[in-house]
Amino acid sequence: MAQMTPEELQHLAEEVLAAQGFSQPQSTAIAAMMVAGQRDDCASHGIYRLLGIVKTLKAGKVVPDAEPRIEDVAPAIVRVDAGGGFSPLAFHAGLPLLEAKARACGLAALTINNCVHFSALWVEMEALTARGLVALACNPTQAYVAPAGGRRPLFGTNPIAFGWPRPEGQPFVFDFATSAVARGEIELHRRAGKALPEGWGVDAEGAPSSDARTVLEEGAMLTFGGHKGSALSAMIELLAGPLIGDLTSPESSAVDAGAGGLPYHGELILAFDPQRFLGAAVGDYQQRAEQLFAGIEAQGARLPSQRRYQARARNTTRGWVEVPDELLADVRALLPG
Amino acid sequence: MAQMTPEELQHLAEEVLAAQGFSQPQSTAIAAMMVAGQRDDCASHGIYRLLGIVKTLKAGKVVPDAEPRIEDVAPAIVRVDAGGGFSPLAFHAGLPLLEAKARACGLAALTINNCVHFSALWVEMEALTARGLVALACNPTQAYVAPAGGRRPLFGTNPIAFGWPRPEGQPFVFDFATSAVARGEIELHRRAGKALPEGWGVDAEGAPSSDARTVLEEGAMLTFGGHKGSALSAMIELLAGPLIGDLTSPESSAVDAGAGGLPYHGELILAFDPQRFLGAAVGDYQQRAEQLFAGIEAQGARLPSQRRYQARARNTTRGWVEVPDELLADVRALLPG
Repeated sequence: MAQMTPEELQHLAEEVLAAQGFSQPQSTAIAAMMVAGQRDDCASHGIYRLLGIVKTLKAGKVVPDAEPRIEDVAPAIVRVDAGGGFSPLAFHAGLPLLEAKARACGLAALTINNCVHFSALWVEMEALTARGLVALACNPTQAYVAPAGGRRPLFGTNPIAFGWPRPEGQPFVFDFATSAVARGEIELHRRAGKALPEGWGVDAEGAPSSDARTVLEEGAMLTFGGHKGSALSAMIELLAGPLIGDLTSPESSAVDAGAGGLPYHGELILAFDPQRFLGAAVGDYQQRAEQLFAGIEAQGARLPSQRRYQARARNTTRGWVEVPDELLADVRALLPG
Repeated sequence: MAQMTPEELQHLAEEVLAAQGFSQPQSTAIAAMMVAGQRDDCASHGIYRLLGIVKTLKAGKVVPDAEPRIEDVAPAIVRVDAGGGFSPLAFHAGLPLLEAKARACGLAALTINNCVHFSALWVEMEALTARGLVALACNPTQAYVAPAGGRRPLFGTNPIAFGWPRPEGQPFVFDFATSAVARGEIELHRRAGKALPEGWGVDAEGAPSSDARTVLEEGAMLTFGGHKGSALSAMIELLAGPLIGDLTSPESSAVDAGAGGLPYHGELILAFDPQRFLGAAVGDYQQRAEQLFAGIEAQGARLPSQRRYQARARNTTRGWVEVPDELLADVRALLPG
């Protein structure tokens, strides 16, 4: 394992992205997302993503120098057209107006459109909670998941994330896929020749299947939580697809047309200003929320994101993050000879 | 089974409520909610609820002639103080301003505060979709459910509901508890002496329990969907509790203090105006949503609420709803001799 400071990692990632033709603002925003992932031992959004990003670029599926265009759609809606670029810069472009609108109206929506989606939603939730806002976000992905009672891929893995600012310490944040598991988890089972647990997928007839290949190639993945999770996944398709003028997961799959690039679709982010909802009572109700958290922890249950926060604390204290040597070599190979 | 027209049922329910001291506006709103439930064969919100309503009144836990007070909190927030009355009249009081704010701002929130909660969220979702709005609602209840990894009642059964207007036919609406099952379902297992399926509850040590009495009296119910459902349930506590200046489920239980009345807490309702999000493209994206629904049904999966809609169609066509004779007698016994 290589040990790198966050600054070194940020610099390396920006260098790689610049060398591949990404503009400086795009490179900075994309690199910051990956450094946050690596800092939290959240490898799925860490710098291994550089490989997929470059693959997506080479497939002609992303605009490396896109300049997000901000549109003031309505008093409580800001739309950012990512112009075919990655999502992180579009998010940062829209954040100030989202915050201003939430403070003015009480709540507001940011829609990110026409983007190649590469965002850990929890990073965005933290950007909002750091401003004292309550946040909710979701997006479709690509068609991998059958609706409850079905058998064909239709829904995406459709993550939903939520953030609640806390007066001290880290915010209450969760971020999970509405699929039973990540698609990568099923891939790992296929490689290892391991049977899938019940509830992960179905075969082409809609019957439960424990065979990873069958689920990935013939049937479909399932949502978490049966028909309830399936209903939530449909809601995410609708809210972060047709409502915001962007693609559903099957439409996103059609755009990808088998290229296997990072997915092209939109994202919906809601921000609520507790100060506008509560006025002078905001401190009282913040304390009531703290009592709820205390009630969770008092019975031995954990708040979400604790593993990430622990990793962050450890990596921040020691001042460096770990990067597998092999991954580092692959990343450096993307720099000009 | 007695056969009654919806009008007869509405009249009877209003008569009973008036006889018990409810004001005319309260009676009309409460009765309409129950008639909608009975019309959809949704007995859990049908007129059997009159018994619980009268019990709640006699326990001194509801204000029968409360007049909802509407407060224009922010450009996108309307608050209705139910004044200790039931929720349906408060919802109707806030609806026009919620609609106006959603159309003006793009999205808006209605908070119902200080109410005794007796609302089927799907009825409210339909009221919003009938106006062409997308809707989302949730509320805490009382502390029955342990967080994932826990063992004590903390969260409510916390329903979440969503509505999407469709150009033809019934809207896409779901409404479900984030508990694994309704509390009444566990009660039924206790009475029948039947073992609970896995995932419904835990004992006082947090271990899975199939014993209904243990779950109800010593341990706790569980959420659907493991730690993901638990995270959603926490989100509902926060959004429809501290964010809107109202009670969490454990706080609601404390207010009830074992009286067993209908629960006292708040509710959050969000409304989104597709016209403001999409402008001239609204028809195009409405059709894309229809394609998603077609993709669900084409693979033999069902859209939510279909059973209710079928019951509604049947009962509407024949012009009457069924009411068990015994229930009807119990209800009529509430009329003055």
